[in-house]
Amino acid sequence: MHILVLGGAGMAGRKFIERLARDGQLGGKTIAKITAQDVVAAQAPAGAAFAFEAVVSDLAVPGQAEALIASRPELIVHLAAVVSGEAEADFEKGYRINLDGTRFLFEAIRLAGGYKPRLVFTSSVAVFGAPFHEKIEDEFFTTPLTSYGTQKAICELLLSDYSRRGFFDGISIRFPTICVRPGTPNKAASGFFSNIIREPLNGIEAVLPVSDQVRHWHASPRSAVNFLIHASTMDLGAVGPRRALTMPGYSCTVAEQIESLRKVAGDNVVARIKRVPDPVIDKIVEGWPRNFDPQRALSLGFKAESSFDEIIRIHIEDELGGNFVK
Amino acid sequence: MHILVLGGAGMAGRKFIERLARDGQLGGKTIAKITAQDVVAAQAPAGAAFAFEAVVSDLAVPGQAEALIASRPELIVHLAAVVSGEAEADFEKGYRINLDGTRFLFEAIRLAGGYKPRLVFTSSVAVFGAPFHEKIEDEFFTTPLTSYGTQKAICELLLSDYSRRGFFDGISIRFPTICVRPGTPNKAASGFFSNIIREPLNGIEAVLPVSDQVRHWHASPRSAVNFLIHASTMDLGAVGPRRALTMPGYSCTVAEQIESLRKVAGDNVVARIKRVPDPVIDKIVEGWPRNFDPQRALSLGFKAESSFDEIIRIHIEDELGGNFVK
Repeated sequence: MHILVLGGAGMAGRKFIERLARDGQLGGKTIAKITAQDVVAAQAPAGAAFAFEAVVSDLAVPGQAEALIASRPELIVHLAAVVSGEAEADFEKGYRINLDGTRFLFEAIRLAGGYKPRLVFTSSVAVFGAPFHEKIEDEFFTTPLTSYGTQKAICELLLSDYSRRGFFDGISIRFPTICVRPGTPNKAASGFFSNIIREPLNGIEAVLPVSDQVRHWHASPRSAVNFLIHASTMDLGAVGPRRALTMPGYSCTVAEQIESLRKVAGDNVVARIKRVPDPVIDKIVEGWPRNFDPQRALSLGFKAESSFDEIIRIHIEDELGGNFVK
Repeated sequence: MHILVLGGAGMAGRKFIERLARDGQLGGKTIAKITAQDVVAAQAPAGAAFAFEAVVSDLAVPGQAEALIASRPELIVHLAAVVSGEAEADFEKGYRINLDGTRFLFEAIRLAGGYKPRLVFTSSVAVFGAPFHEKIEDEFFTTPLTSYGTQKAICELLLSDYSRRGFFDGISIRFPTICVRPGTPNKAASGFFSNIIREPLNGIEAVLPVSDQVRHWHASPRSAVNFLIHASTMDLGAVGPRRALTMPGYSCTVAEQIESLRKVAGDNVVARIKRVPDPVIDKIVEGWPRNFDPQRALSLGFKAESSFDEIIRIHIEDELGGNFVK
């Protein structure tokens, strides 16, 4: 099979492609080729038995979507997006990339005719806006408080309608915050959830800008890849017309994150977390979802971690080769 | 003040403009001019003290939205849409008119700069898709089962985001089924709800294609105009960022509609209803919302009828000059 990954150079895209390179197959079908599109060149995965092509293009430029689907990939995994902060800072860019780009893709598929790929679209819990219930149910309404969340919610609606009309077989999956995010600290307001684990394990100090009592919704990068694989291979007949699913995750407080780190890595590692309260970040985080009750996704076979210990152990295994700085 | 009514030749637009012609003012401000845009020429209301201009144009043609707002109307009431059946039959036309046309309008306002009109957008309970609760709450999710409902739900999201960003001061109001709809029977699947009242009162037989036990959600044309007036004049600060509101209505069964008709107009009139079961219409109607609990709209001052008797009496008063065929 031929797989097209949009946003293939990003963290989730890269990890998804690396996993496919290890597996060699998806849902029992041998992978012949992966095309990874992004605004920068995606790197070829090591040791892949399939052909790999990196395409550098902007999905929001008319004609690009048509070119990407010209060879009719059976599976399209759409991870490409301008992130939340950028979509808020640059209104036009956010709508152009996150809405128009996605719509160009959907339209290109519809107009191709007789072509009905599986289409996996990654959405976000940013489709929800406070105030919400302590535990958000599957039938709770989407009232985003960012342009990014608005764009994701709109694409979910389009995907459901295009799927209902039979133009493709689509599913939108709403990722939790991915933790522990590999790499270096970035300026995202959510960065500290990963920073306070990743940096201390590397022997480096990390700043905790919020209270220990802040609760948040997490899943590991490994779970993110599992979500993509399950969404790519499951029977979508069982999903029905409501094609947007909140993925499972693990809800815990920062205090619980820290106690997990202590249990897994010891007091010395925890001592590298420095408390530097930042009221601006505190205020932003207050508006974020804390917990979900993702019954539909669970009943459809999606799985995530069931403890934060597990999330830390996965990070040490997958990113640090089993070692950390004691 | 200058008011722009998009879809001004339709039933709701016409009645809204006629009401403004009688009132002469809106929210205490004298009306200087009404511009009524539609794909056919809207008729000037009788006895208006304000200037009236009918513009025939297609909002989905680039440049038309800019032309319509060139004189910076303080209030824009957007009622223009391709109806549900047509949006389902013609996928491209539905998206072009109902989504692109609305987005062109929003973008024209944003790019005008320093112009922040009140914008009232009429949405629909078609943003909901079965299965739903017997009484749909304000926080229930929008999972439309038609392209029309999808387009309305997307425009609601855009309106909330553009309002949050300060580009205009918008509100989306979801109309119940308007009953008794004046005019002649049409082919809309929902037509019979009005037909079985309007036609018998005119001395004409009407067909009832569904069971007496079918429950539906109604408001009179007079209430629809009241919704528009309240949405045009209320303090939107109290609404907050969740700018889509389900309007109040009256929920009743067809049996209750018929008993109201008997009470208001007598047995002879009711005898003009002929039962001709139509399984196709029955199936369509089964997927429609039956009842709502529109707490937010009620608390914000929106009002509808509290009995079906009242809905019939309003029809006799407003459309039949107080008389009917006994």
